[in-house]
Amino acid sequence: MVHPENYSLSKTRDTLHFPPSSREFLEHYLPPTRNIPLSSNPTKPHITLTFAASLDSQLSLSPGLPTALSGPASKAMTHYLRSRHDAILVGVGTAIADDPSLNCRIEGVGGYGGEGLEGQPRPVILDPNGRWAFSEEIKVFVLAREGRGRAPYVVTGTAELDEGRRRVLEGCGGKLITVGMGERGLEWGEVLRVLGREGIRSVMVEGGGKVINSLLKVGNQGLVDSVIVTIAPTWLGEGGVVVSPPRRFGEDGNAMSAVKLGEVKWQPFGEDVVMCGRIKL
Amino acid sequence: MVHPENYSLSKTRDTLHFPPSSREFLEHYLPPTRNIPLSSNPTKPHITLTFAASLDSQLSLSPGLPTALSGPASKAMTHYLRSRHDAILVGVGTAIADDPSLNCRIEGVGGYGGEGLEGQPRPVILDPNGRWAFSEEIKVFVLAREGRGRAPYVVTGTAELDEGRRRVLEGCGGKLITVGMGERGLEWGEVLRVLGREGIRSVMVEGGGKVINSLLKVGNQGLVDSVIVTIAPTWLGEGGVVVSPPRRFGEDGNAMSAVKLGEVKWQPFGEDVVMCGRIKL
Ligand SMILES: NC(=O)c1ccc[n+]([C@@H]2O[C@H](COP(=O)([O-])OP(=O)(O)OC[C@H]3O[C@@H](n4cnc5c(N)ncnc54)[C@H](OP(=O)(O)O)[C@@H]3O)[C@@H](O)[C@H]2O)c1
Ligand SMILES: NC(=O)c1ccc[n+]([C@@H]2O[C@H](COP(=O)([O-])OP(=O)(O)OC[C@H]3O[C@@H](n4cnc5c(N)ncnc54)[C@H](OP(=O)(O)O)[C@@H]3O)[C@@H](O)[C@H]2O)c1
Repeated sequence: MVHPENYSLSKTRDTLHFPPSSREFLEHYLPPTRNIPLSSNPTKPHITLTFAASLDSQLSLSPGLPTALSGPASKAMTHYLRSRHDAILVGVGTAIADDPSLNCRIEGVGGYGGEGLEGQPRPVILDPNGRWAFSEEIKVFVLAREGRGRAPYVVTGTAELDEGRRRVLEGCGGKLITVGMGERGLEWGEVLRVLGREGIRSVMVEGGGKVINSLLKVGNQGLVDSVIVTIAPTWLGEGGVVVSPPRRFGEDGNAMSAVKLGEVKWQPFGEDVVMCGRIKL
Repeated sequence: MVHPENYSLSKTRDTLHFPPSSREFLEHYLPPTRNIPLSSNPTKPHITLTFAASLDSQLSLSPGLPTALSGPASKAMTHYLRSRHDAILVGVGTAIADDPSLNCRIEGVGGYGGEGLEGQPRPVILDPNGRWAFSEEIKVFVLAREGRGRAPYVVTGTAELDEGRRRVLEGCGGKLITVGMGERGLEWGEVLRVLGREGIRSVMVEGGGKVINSLLKVGNQGLVDSVIVTIAPTWLGEGGVVVSPPRRFGEDGNAMSAVKLGEVKWQPFGEDVVMCGRIKL
């Protein structure tokens, strides 16, 4: 049990502190540290699925309604996890609803006490239909221009960017990556292949609901290397953004558990709990 | 962290063992032991809300489809908790779907090594409209006749019992308790008052979904003294029996967290975690 006070903001530029004693239990579920080249299966990046949910498995009260779910300890953990991945990935729903920073504010990474952009993950936004109407005031672009985060990659299906958005994106060093669309939109295997080709060896998928539920589907589960879920002791109540994958049926035609986890560890973190595990295929 | 092997069945009559080391973290959330008379506010029994859910807050894949959620350690805990309450309460949906035993099989309670029915809770079934078409083969009646459980109380609204069911119920010492119905069915305050009048000082509410969601509503939350939830590391997938209370709105008209918990403790239990807490009003 770790006390929230240990995760306080330090004095320089809002950096977060995540004590080494807390890092240990996560290690088994993380990709190798980023200065060691990943050797195994270089065509698929390591995927860590991670998010914070309520007891009723909701990510937020509704898209666009700020929902303070987890405590300061979990926030520091999220930023530590970001420092351990080459990229953070979210769906366009989250980009539109939250205008998230998608950078890493752990003390010592680039832009927060460290050199250049070292330790900063690449923000990746999945926007199959080019719905994200971003401008230069959007946080990821501001942070990229200020040297406090990497420039984002936007992964899209068929969409072309208008001139204004192209200037914002490419002006800070970001880019649009076009992948072929399957019948049901972007195909995960394809997305991960193009990210691998960009040199991304590990991806932390943070949300939102649709993206997570899609990755937890039977056909996609095998792409997920580990799962790190924070649970906050609150029921948000019906009607929010729910994590619950599509129903799965066994050979007898009966419903069965959609996703089972193994190698499970639970770690209390302030008032929250963090669960680590791997999907049993 | 407690290992599942410590909870094995002992050799006599399928009794379960729950080690004293595991009992400790529950104590703060339980009513006083049953041989000490409860002093405070004798008109309302102590209510412990307790159930096992998946990561996506489901109690089962669907009513009637057996769903093995939690492991042996959590099962032993449930039976220990039963020994600490005067009554166990479930809704008629659970009675119909599961034909549950609703007795206590911890070693040493009456019927499982102990004297008479000592330590056995009273099964209480909430059946406002008399939908439960029970016969003498139903488990609670078999167990009551065999001296392995107390006879059930059925709490109803306006329903009259036919002669067959009356004979089964009263034949083993059970009874029908009629309470006035409110607009939305049985009113919790009234149910707890009549149970208190029957000498019941503590009630463990076990489910199912509708009963739990009803107790977690704003107007009823104040009746709940503590909450003990087991979470199993699996997503059952959309479409099961969900625990998620009705949405709640703040004074600004925006949705807010429906239920917040305080005094929270998390305890890993085999592959599951157990969360204890109290509702913040
Ligand atoms: N608590 C947390 O940890 C956390 C983390 C992140 C987000 N959130 C919350 O989650 C909410 C947003 O979730 P959301 O479900 O509305 O949006 P989302 O999952 O962020 O984005 C969904 C959109 O992403 C696109 N997409 C691309 N590839 C996809 C795929 N393979 N499967 C599904 N969608 C794909 C689709 O765009 P098209 O419709 O154009 O096809 C889809 O509508 C916000 O309230 C945010 O605050 C919470
Ligand atoms: N995992 C666990 O720990 C656990 C524990 C228990 C049950 N379960 C599962 O839960 C499922 C059954 O849940 P369920 O939601 O279908 O049924 P339920 O909650 O057990 O019973 C619901 C019924 O109880 C009656 N009721 C009486 N007072 C009520 C009140 N104040 N609020 C709401 N209902 C009240 C209503 O009958 P009327 O419709 O006649 O008004 C209602 O339909 C089963 O699958 C069972 O296996 C799981």
